[in-house]
Amino acid sequence: MSKGLPKRSEDYAAWYQELVKQADLAEHAPVKGCMIIKPYGFGIWEKMQRTLDDMFKETGHVNAYFPLFIPKSYLSKEAAHVEGFAKECAVVTHYRLKNSPDGKGVIVDPEARLEEELIVRPTSETIIWSAYRNWIQSYRDLPLLINQWANVVRWEMRTRLFLRTAEFLWQEGHTAHATKEEAIEETRRMLDVYARFAEEYMAMPVIKGVKSENERFAGAVDTYCIEALMQDGKALQAGTSHFLGQNFAKAFDVKFANKEGELDYVWGTSWGVSTRLMGALIMTHSDDKGLVLPPRLAPIQVVIVPIYHGDDELEAIQTYVQGIIEKLKRVGIKVHFDARDTHRPGFKFAEWELKGVPVRLAIGKRDMENNQVEVARRDTGEKHTAPVDGLTEHILDLLDDVQQSLFKRALAFREANTRKADSYEEFKEILEKHGGFILAHWDGTTETELRIKEETKATIRCIPLDAEEEEGKCIVTGKPSKRRVLFAKAY
Amino acid sequence: MSKGLPKRSEDYAAWYQELVKQADLAEHAPVKGCMIIKPYGFGIWEKMQRTLDDMFKETGHVNAYFPLFIPKSYLSKEAAHVEGFAKECAVVTHYRLKNSPDGKGVIVDPEARLEEELIVRPTSETIIWSAYRNWIQSYRDLPLLINQWANVVRWEMRTRLFLRTAEFLWQEGHTAHATKEEAIEETRRMLDVYARFAEEYMAMPVIKGVKSENERFAGAVDTYCIEALMQDGKALQAGTSHFLGQNFAKAFDVKFANKEGELDYVWGTSWGVSTRLMGALIMTHSDDKGLVLPPRLAPIQVVIVPIYHGDDELEAIQTYVQGIIEKLKRVGIKVHFDARDTHRPGFKFAEWELKGVPVRLAIGKRDMENNQVEVARRDTGEKHTAPVDGLTEHILDLLDDVQQSLFKRALAFREANTRKADSYEEFKEILEKHGGFILAHWDGTTETELRIKEETKATIRCIPLDAEEEEGKCIVTGKPSKRRVLFAKAY
Repeated sequence: MSKGLPKRSEDYAAWYQELVKQADLAEHAPVKGCMIIKPYGFGIWEKMQRTLDDMFKETGHVNAYFPLFIPKSYLSKEAAHVEGFAKECAVVTHYRLKNSPDGKGVIVDPEARLEEELIVRPTSETIIWSAYRNWIQSYRDLPLLINQWANVVRWEMRTRLFLRTAEFLWQEGHTAHATKEEAIEETRRMLDVYARFAEEYMAMPVIKGVKSENERFAGAVDTYCIEALMQDGKALQAGTSHFLGQNFAKAFDVKFANKEGELDYVWGTSWGVSTRLMGALIMTHSDDKGLVLPPRLAPIQVVIVPIYHGDDELEAIQTYVQGIIEKLKRVGIKVHFDARDTHRPGFKFAEWELKGVPVRLAIGKRDMENNQVEVARRDTGEKHTAPVDGLTEHILDLLDDVQQSLFKRALAFREANTRKADSYEEFKEILEKHGGFILAHWDGTTETELRIKEETKATIRCIPLDAEEEEGKCIVTGKPSKRRVLFAKAY
Repeated sequence: MSKGLPKRSEDYAAWYQELVKQADLAEHAPVKGCMIIKPYGFGIWEKMQRTLDDMFKETGHVNAYFPLFIPKSYLSKEAAHVEGFAKECAVVTHYRLKNSPDGKGVIVDPEARLEEELIVRPTSETIIWSAYRNWIQSYRDLPLLINQWANVVRWEMRTRLFLRTAEFLWQEGHTAHATKEEAIEETRRMLDVYARFAEEYMAMPVIKGVKSENERFAGAVDTYCIEALMQDGKALQAGTSHFLGQNFAKAFDVKFANKEGELDYVWGTSWGVSTRLMGALIMTHSDDKGLVLPPRLAPIQVVIVPIYHGDDELEAIQTYVQGIIEKLKRVGIKVHFDARDTHRPGFKFAEWELKGVPVRLAIGKRDMENNQVEVARRDTGEKHTAPVDGLTEHILDLLDDVQQSLFKRALAFREANTRKADSYEEFKEILEKHGGFILAHWDGTTETELRIKEETKATIRCIPLDAEEEEGKCIVTGKPSKRRVLFAKAY
């Protein structure tokens, strides 16, 4: 804690890593590529989960749970899917250990080999659609609107806490519909839910768009996404919503009888967000002093630090603040009174700054006498004195203001870092000098996209849904283009 | 649904299996031993989770997340633990698949073999205590009160939905303390939380006790448990809370400096309940018509079925019940209006009975005219007419009454099926004739316990915490015994 953080401007990657560690959010597990999400980090994730879960339920979805293991053969059933997912997977081959003959520890029992290997789910389309085959017979069974909260594993060699880990937590929605139109509507609805969550709760502005063919989910007809811009000028894909067409229905033979009794394949969608959102949240708002949390996702929204000399004063303050705490709790504010007598106020201030608590109240003997508290907001560092009378209303307003300010600040940053490029030269120059989002014309081919990626490391983040029609020429090939697409280097 | 259930009295096992299937709670997954928890079943589990999670937080615990995979060597670090858990495990040996040379599907890439095999967690003591080593330095870091909600895998050959499956969902609390007394207090506190949850929410009476050495958790000094009696006279262990002593602290070298600066090993506890509780809930209350759910855990507490002829009447009823629905929702009652025009009321009645909805309202044209509804309770099947005026209060009272009645009924059943045996003959006779709980004297040796188990299949469920001191003689060996212990055949 006391070590301080590297500066973002000097070493952004080191800043991120140290921040995650020092703010007690997560750490690397002894198993390569896996992470331990520590209680403070998990508290933020729980708030995300709860909020999203409520939003899913409001839009008619229910939760279920499907198995962790997928038979190896299932992965091969959808042609594109197997290419994308049946690669870096954790494979279970045995089901028993036995004592080592040398008496030291345990060994894998060679006789307990599985007939068919099991894959630890990297995503659950295959296992879920194999169940849907039995669940869906007629149009009366549709739509099927199911979500699951689960852990998934995609073997990764180069990992970064929250951003890329072998095991991560996520939710995956898997829906089945009678018509193409309805499935597309669902895909877009969930994209909107994600965008609303990102903007209203994470205070993180996002651009909604559709992926190019090259960046599409393996097995999808269309992949929609929300893209956010981090403070180092790199983009982060924060959520995806896939229109699966009838691909998985065909792969798993899921048909339904329509009202006329005719059989047809079911239309599908899937959509997910993961603990990656934690990385996005951290990188969108935090600063060189530590984490900055939007109030709506902060496990602790208000911390109260007593300024005192001696036990008597501490006790007096403790008694005095009880009324304040009760009033704040009554309106649903998460408040913590830091009564530790093992640390000085300055240490506590720095610690709560590091942990990103949106509002800090400090109260000493004189404050009590004057019926006032010192109020500090984490986002700007501004301090002011406020009367205890009417404090609850004041704090509610302040939390709202912090929430809005963080969004505005992030939006201003994104706007300042979104540029148009009309030639490949200009494109490369912007990328080198500023990074950020670049809007440029593209000829629509994977070939050009890959060339740009290879030469600049920038990828097409998405074709923004609100992209204006505009006659233009591809910055690389000069071929005609009807709208600009969004490029960036990305996490 | 329409098939009807086997009778409990004729084939209890078949009744259970069919009930789980027909009430849409869960089904077997294509992966041997794994289950799919369907939305209706998961809705009940979510209510359990939410309630327990709140209770854990009220008692000072926080959630975190630890990895799914455990390095094989970790399992061997605690001597007793490895004996108990390093047996029927899912073992990950490889991390990559590749396209099959014959072009058909994928195969495990032999070059992607892990240096050390990974075990899919059967329980997380080892991985968590290895993290605690870094988290705990001084008494200031204690107590550490952490819980996680997770999936675990214990390979099982003979599985039954919810009761015994290879993968299951659970929570596992893992706490660390400075003193033995505090750790024992925590172990007992969580046992009390489980008992309160079982009795007040599941309406399932439980006996709190401590396990015999033979039934103890592998690695624990003492295992406390709650035991419930199912309707077929078999016992079900519904939750366990372990006092780990310093066993895992020693195995993973977790020491702390006390206030005097002296180093000592940390004291530990762990405690868990799982989706097994779903099985317990089903078997405690349900009947030959289907599921019976206690109102506090029912995803739908009140269902409203319209009785109508023609679309006009349905529409009129729909409009009429809006006010009722809103009022019920306002006080937090989960209500569902079954507006399906594809099924007749009789079908709907049977379906909601099968699904265990505690209260059913039926409303037809004449009911509307008289401002009344027909109210039926699921537990007793009793019906009565109630005025719409004041209905909300009436339903609230009724739900409370159903909750209490279910508990009382289950308690009466348990009391009627708990018998004392003073000789081995009597013991065997009771077991054969009645099943149920048997209180008998035992000499305290594992030898006698195992003999009884082998000869009768009954095991010591626990030594009840409230067992009276009583001079007696072991029913098998005649050796002296100070209190009766609880025997039963068990799930």
